[in-house]
Amino acid sequence: MSRIAIDAMGGDKGPREVVLGTVQAHEKYPDIELILVGRAEELEPLLAEHGDKAKGIKVVHASEVVSMEDSPMDAIRGKKDSSVNRSVNLVATGQADAIMSPGNTGAVVASATFQLRLLKGVRRPGIAVSIPTSRGVTMVIDVGANVYPKPEHLCQYAAMAGVYSHLIWNVEKPRVGLLNIGSENAKGTGLVRQVHEQLSRSNLNFVGNLEGYDLWDGNYDVIVCEGFVGNVLLKVSEGLWPALLKQVSKSLKKHMGESAGEWTKAISELLTRYDYAEYGGAPLLGVNGICIICHGSSEAKAFMNAIRLANDCVGMALNKCMQEAVHAAGFDQAGEGSTA
Amino acid sequence: MSRIAIDAMGGDKGPREVVLGTVQAHEKYPDIELILVGRAEELEPLLAEHGDKAKGIKVVHASEVVSMEDSPMDAIRGKKDSSVNRSVNLVATGQADAIMSPGNTGAVVASATFQLRLLKGVRRPGIAVSIPTSRGVTMVIDVGANVYPKPEHLCQYAAMAGVYSHLIWNVEKPRVGLLNIGSENAKGTGLVRQVHEQLSRSNLNFVGNLEGYDLWDGNYDVIVCEGFVGNVLLKVSEGLWPALLKQVSKSLKKHMGESAGEWTKAISELLTRYDYAEYGGAPLLGVNGICIICHGSSEAKAFMNAIRLANDCVGMALNKCMQEAVHAAGFDQAGEGSTA
Repeated sequence: MSRIAIDAMGGDKGPREVVLGTVQAHEKYPDIELILVGRAEELEPLLAEHGDKAKGIKVVHASEVVSMEDSPMDAIRGKKDSSVNRSVNLVATGQADAIMSPGNTGAVVASATFQLRLLKGVRRPGIAVSIPTSRGVTMVIDVGANVYPKPEHLCQYAAMAGVYSHLIWNVEKPRVGLLNIGSENAKGTGLVRQVHEQLSRSNLNFVGNLEGYDLWDGNYDVIVCEGFVGNVLLKVSEGLWPALLKQVSKSLKKHMGESAGEWTKAISELLTRYDYAEYGGAPLLGVNGICIICHGSSEAKAFMNAIRLANDCVGMALNKCMQEAVHAAGFDQAGEGSTA
Repeated sequence: MSRIAIDAMGGDKGPREVVLGTVQAHEKYPDIELILVGRAEELEPLLAEHGDKAKGIKVVHASEVVSMEDSPMDAIRGKKDSSVNRSVNLVATGQADAIMSPGNTGAVVASATFQLRLLKGVRRPGIAVSIPTSRGVTMVIDVGANVYPKPEHLCQYAAMAGVYSHLIWNVEKPRVGLLNIGSENAKGTGLVRQVHEQLSRSNLNFVGNLEGYDLWDGNYDVIVCEGFVGNVLLKVSEGLWPALLKQVSKSLKKHMGESAGEWTKAISELLTRYDYAEYGGAPLLGVNGICIICHGSSEAKAFMNAIRLANDCVGMALNKCMQEAVHAAGFDQAGEGSTA
């Protein structure tokens, strides 16, 4: 039975939505121990609204809240008793097995790096998201933890996400691609050219550069990129699904009239298939612990799925395998893992 | 009557497709003077296949071809008699009014910068694409000309694309957004924070940071970003439309059966609306001339539309207005335009 610390204060929609997702997860996965972290005076009444359904969910008080405007340093130094810091602390001190947070991403990354430290040989953590493609799921790393990456960071991401793809998505020998602005080896910035060279020489199943439009064909299990680029890629895609589906609905209605009500079923099936909420959160890979980050705008269903994902990760030797993979690929740095 | 120099050798599909697009443009816009540049021994037989339809299209011989593998410097120094260089040279020497090229983007940018020079006060050219959104057209600049931008480059792009949006898309006071990984002012890299500050102080209609999912709501007329990021954004989006529409078709067929053949009409209408080929090419803004870049993988229709766009640009005081706008925004650098 795993124990999940849930940062209840960070979501854009406020604690009510996080509490709702937690209660739903509690009903669906009663064996998982759920610990809501945040202002007890707010969380307890919200839990009480759910009556017996919320029985067994714990609350750990944290007096402060990190806002989206706080810088990562403000958050970890200035608001020591924030729900983010307290949640991470529960894992750091062995009182929980995983953290789930919809809060300020920078603050979560900083707090987790600072309190949990990094896996041996890993220099920076990266956020990996699972994106549905026409043929399965592609992991994209990094989507915003690290906006000043060095070549070795991206190489380590490749090794870690490969392990994740193998353990979580059952991919035998994950195909790793490097996101670039052309398929030729010499394309792109100095950073990506160096990463290309290092990945080519490694034991990973590196299949080379890819361009943006190759994302959807399912030819890659892991795609490596800078945090800024990955963040834009993710959000552009997330915005495009609903925009296009709205257009399709409008267009169908025009051509087929209300009589063709069947299309709604088709559209909603697609919405589910491509709904990122189904995939829950995104793991922060490289920290010495399990940390799942959700969108700030997540709704209850996304929180519930993120809790399930955190639980899945706890049950696997994910971090041990990732550390070994970084070493085996020759990407570990001399000495202990460090935040420097 | 404008004169368009067409780099016929650069496309991924070979000169046949470029010639076809040129012949189609010639039929549709007989007043435009079209000059195909490339190996005469290849181009002339291809033109001859079209018989009288191709009458009036000129051929200018260029003995060399820049491949996608050539670096920009190889292309402009090592292959002086390439179709790219010769096309640009026709404009530089007053023998044509605009260039259209589907070739190696880096080579086109380098050749145009080197031979045409830059507008006064402009430091780097940028490629601007027009992206259809739910409420109109958004210009994104840069999508790959400049992968090492400085803050002043992005600010100049904002001013230039604002003029383009005004003249080509008739937007009265273009709303300029800065692509970032969060909406808060302090988010992102040092580069985007500096650009944010400079745009805020300028006379442009700067409305602040946006995130990837804000792209599709049509709240911005101009979106400024680094070349690497813009290139990924563009190609991810281009790949996603057909991927999703394929899924929608499959899903509709499953739910509605063949009887619901009407949906094909709706889908194909959408494909047209969001077909980038409809928008032709992307202008390289900042060079002292008109230069339209197409996808290497373009088909005849895209070439035809790029030719129309080049012709539209020639008819306007685009470069003069852009130079004035860069100056009025306080973004011009001391001294003459320079490639340094």
